[in-house]
Amino acid sequence: MASSSHLSPPPVPMELHVTSRQKILNSLRHHLSHSSRPLHGFVFLQGGEEQTRHDTDHIELFRQESYFAYLFGVAEPGFYGAIDIASGKSILFAPRLPADYAVWLGEIKPLVHFKERYMVDVVYYTDEISKVLQDEYQGSGKPLLFLLHGLNTDSNNFSKPAEFQGMDKFETDLTTLHPILTECRVIKSDLELGLIQFANDISSEAHVEVMRKIRVGMKEYQLESMFLHHTYMYGGCRHCSYTCICATGGNSAVLHYGHAAAPNDRTLDDGDMALLDMGAEYHFYGSDITCSFPVNGKFTSDQSLIYNAVLDAHDAVISAMKPGVTWIDMHKLSEKIVLESLQRGGILVGNVDDMMVERLGAVFMPHGLGHFLGLDTHDPGGYSKGMERPKEPGLKSLRTIRELQEGMVITVEPGCYFIDALLVPAMENSKTARFFNREAIIRFKGFGGVRIESDLHVTANGCRNMTNVPRKIPEIEAVMAGAPWPLDKASVDSQNGEASKF
Amino acid sequence: MASSSHLSPPPVPMELHVTSRQKILNSLRHHLSHSSRPLHGFVFLQGGEEQTRHDTDHIELFRQESYFAYLFGVAEPGFYGAIDIASGKSILFAPRLPADYAVWLGEIKPLVHFKERYMVDVVYYTDEISKVLQDEYQGSGKPLLFLLHGLNTDSNNFSKPAEFQGMDKFETDLTTLHPILTECRVIKSDLELGLIQFANDISSEAHVEVMRKIRVGMKEYQLESMFLHHTYMYGGCRHCSYTCICATGGNSAVLHYGHAAAPNDRTLDDGDMALLDMGAEYHFYGSDITCSFPVNGKFTSDQSLIYNAVLDAHDAVISAMKPGVTWIDMHKLSEKIVLESLQRGGILVGNVDDMMVERLGAVFMPHGLGHFLGLDTHDPGGYSKGMERPKEPGLKSLRTIRELQEGMVITVEPGCYFIDALLVPAMENSKTARFFNREAIIRFKGFGGVRIESDLHVTANGCRNMTNVPRKIPEIEAVMAGAPWPLDKASVDSQNGEASKF
Repeated sequence: MASSSHLSPPPVPMELHVTSRQKILNSLRHHLSHSSRPLHGFVFLQGGEEQTRHDTDHIELFRQESYFAYLFGVAEPGFYGAIDIASGKSILFAPRLPADYAVWLGEIKPLVHFKERYMVDVVYYTDEISKVLQDEYQGSGKPLLFLLHGLNTDSNNFSKPAEFQGMDKFETDLTTLHPILTECRVIKSDLELGLIQFANDISSEAHVEVMRKIRVGMKEYQLESMFLHHTYMYGGCRHCSYTCICATGGNSAVLHYGHAAAPNDRTLDDGDMALLDMGAEYHFYGSDITCSFPVNGKFTSDQSLIYNAVLDAHDAVISAMKPGVTWIDMHKLSEKIVLESLQRGGILVGNVDDMMVERLGAVFMPHGLGHFLGLDTHDPGGYSKGMERPKEPGLKSLRTIRELQEGMVITVEPGCYFIDALLVPAMENSKTARFFNREAIIRFKGFGGVRIESDLHVTANGCRNMTNVPRKIPEIEAVMAGAPWPLDKASVDSQNGEASKF
Repeated sequence: MASSSHLSPPPVPMELHVTSRQKILNSLRHHLSHSSRPLHGFVFLQGGEEQTRHDTDHIELFRQESYFAYLFGVAEPGFYGAIDIASGKSILFAPRLPADYAVWLGEIKPLVHFKERYMVDVVYYTDEISKVLQDEYQGSGKPLLFLLHGLNTDSNNFSKPAEFQGMDKFETDLTTLHPILTECRVIKSDLELGLIQFANDISSEAHVEVMRKIRVGMKEYQLESMFLHHTYMYGGCRHCSYTCICATGGNSAVLHYGHAAAPNDRTLDDGDMALLDMGAEYHFYGSDITCSFPVNGKFTSDQSLIYNAVLDAHDAVISAMKPGVTWIDMHKLSEKIVLESLQRGGILVGNVDDMMVERLGAVFMPHGLGHFLGLDTHDPGGYSKGMERPKEPGLKSLRTIRELQEGMVITVEPGCYFIDALLVPAMENSKTARFFNREAIIRFKGFGGVRIESDLHVTANGCRNMTNVPRKIPEIEAVMAGAPWPLDKASVDSQNGEASKF
């Protein structure tokens, strides 16, 4: 096969989940002590179940619920898990499989298999939950279960607390666990970072592969197919972090293009920009990367103008990021840099500070600058208790408004789009109409948009970019023309020779 | 790219769904007339909705509910559809999308777009269902809705009847529609056959591609990745009919291998058999194809023995199939041929008719011979009203026991597996122990199994194989060694030269 990879799937470190369990145990014990509550009870979670498609026996490929995956790392459906707060003991409950499972679905593994694989203290069957937890409980009265119930601030859905037969014999606490466990997930351990890094490595490589193979006349879904194939074939990534967004031409102004009602089915035209937002997942941990570039491999001056506006914002944010910085400030920084570039390029006219007051940035970038990334693409914890979502255009789309802390992983994804549904009202609005150079704006009709997205790990003194794809225009053009990535010396020399063009 | 295809995605014929609507209208009117019931009311179906993963905003790629897809062909979520039995008028109800859909998810299409695309008579919004249907209704009293409610005999799930606000203003009939609509789906129209043929063509080609590229040392999931890529890249098939089963070595005795708890993650060894059961879906219509072959490209004599036993069964069934033949007889025919081969090969001893009486065939082939195929991989209608599922081993797994009729599409997928969970009890059972040559059986420990599966269209006088992959051992070995498929003259000559080996 012509395509190839320098990577191979790393061993999966199950110690990761041992560390996660220790972390929630410490956090929860600390919280209970502070509240003068007894250190008794169980963290108790229910894993996901396989789903059939409507009334049929078509089973969708199962992917574990993320909180359960965080604590237990279990790939199989139908499990429950508990952590005894008093003893620290970890307990998995596996489904008791019928004898004919062995014929249809595979070897029925003994409980000890799961104990060893998932590095827990003990494993029972799910029909033993009530008995086991009552036997283990060392407090008085009914044993207490800390169940997971809380709001996901991206979906506005609530997590569903565990349920099992015999639950009436237990006390349940629905409020304590969710914020504490969510906060554990916000700060990534080294082992978690390792998986996110691999997901980034293989996805970065796949993006480069697509850049090399893209051709005018292809269908958008062929780009998706190449990406999926590269990450699965060479990275063992069976799941994607999210449905691939393979938007070209005008579609690149649709922020979440690629779903069933807009299914990556356009034919690529000469002169189109492509906006490819695609990330693979490895052992539950994801990546989220966007590359934007011209389908034909050569930026026009208008494409360069918009692209560099976004790249400057991307780079400026990354330079400014460090613990203590607030994400709203980073969002506004990116807006300001984009607006300045558009003004310098003659697309906007007037004072950029005035534009900021009128929230003009949100016309060109209606989405938030970035979001936490981990077991979920939009990893939870963006709004801690008491934090209120901003109301202003653009800012209201922020998935977090928090201060950065060491150990967070967050995407930096500024964009600049020409969206009729936003531009037309803004050009008619008496407060913002004066900023637009109408003749210039007309040039960008059907242009679509540019987004540049990298995954950043916040370190003690700054941040580290986990994504490794060509970003500068000469880098992109060199790679699309066949240069290796990272560029070797010959490519850099030839790139420098051409750099004056930009 | 080294891989290539002779195929490209055909235009999607939306007339297919016009035909389906006319068919249910005719069938239902006929049924109502025969029951002396008035020809009033609506066939009323609810399409599928997008699903999020647990509490997150991760949206699984939507695939339409199959009955709704059959009648309306709608790709988008959130629709309802009606057919007026009196007038024959077809009505779609589209969700009313919020203004910011245009920013995040794409252009908000006018209703006329769906009218033209899906070739229906009229389109309204879903919040107008109650009013529109009351206005359209020409009978007296509350308007009558024929809702879809009935058992799927493969999953044992019931389809969920449509629900909407204002339903209390309607009479509902939950029993009439399901059997009649299911029966419509059993007999395929020419346009349906065309889509199933394309799904077969691209999947057959992808199987050949995998045969050529398979190597000792690969992972099973790499075979899956190659298949998925080929069918999406060159066939535009975004969905698979079912999770790919890429079973090698002992795993090939696990009938439904490949799911999350057995995820195609074994490394291919020299000497392994591979059993690859993979099929792509095109515009909702599926394919279901299994190829079995040695990973290293050369059959051993034991591998040939088992493979040819299954191939002979596959070919004999296909030769015997025609309208009027019952599927139980075909299942038994395939069992008998496999048992005869095992007896000739010295693995079994004694009289094959006696083995049949003791249901020994079910030890080696515990699954049914095949199933209807269409919008679902296990297409409904296998058991009509009043038909009882057999109780005997093997036969009880049959997904249909019906007589063949012209226009059915059914898989033919005999297999022969060495499954400890079945072999050990059978060798200990006083009624069946005598049939086993224990020394020979030991040779097949860890062998796994062989399955050969093609998709057959029942014609007026026989049947037509829609699947086109190498089946004879010399064909498989030639293709794996690099010969084109179909074989050209040079390959056939060299194959004939080698054929004496088998």
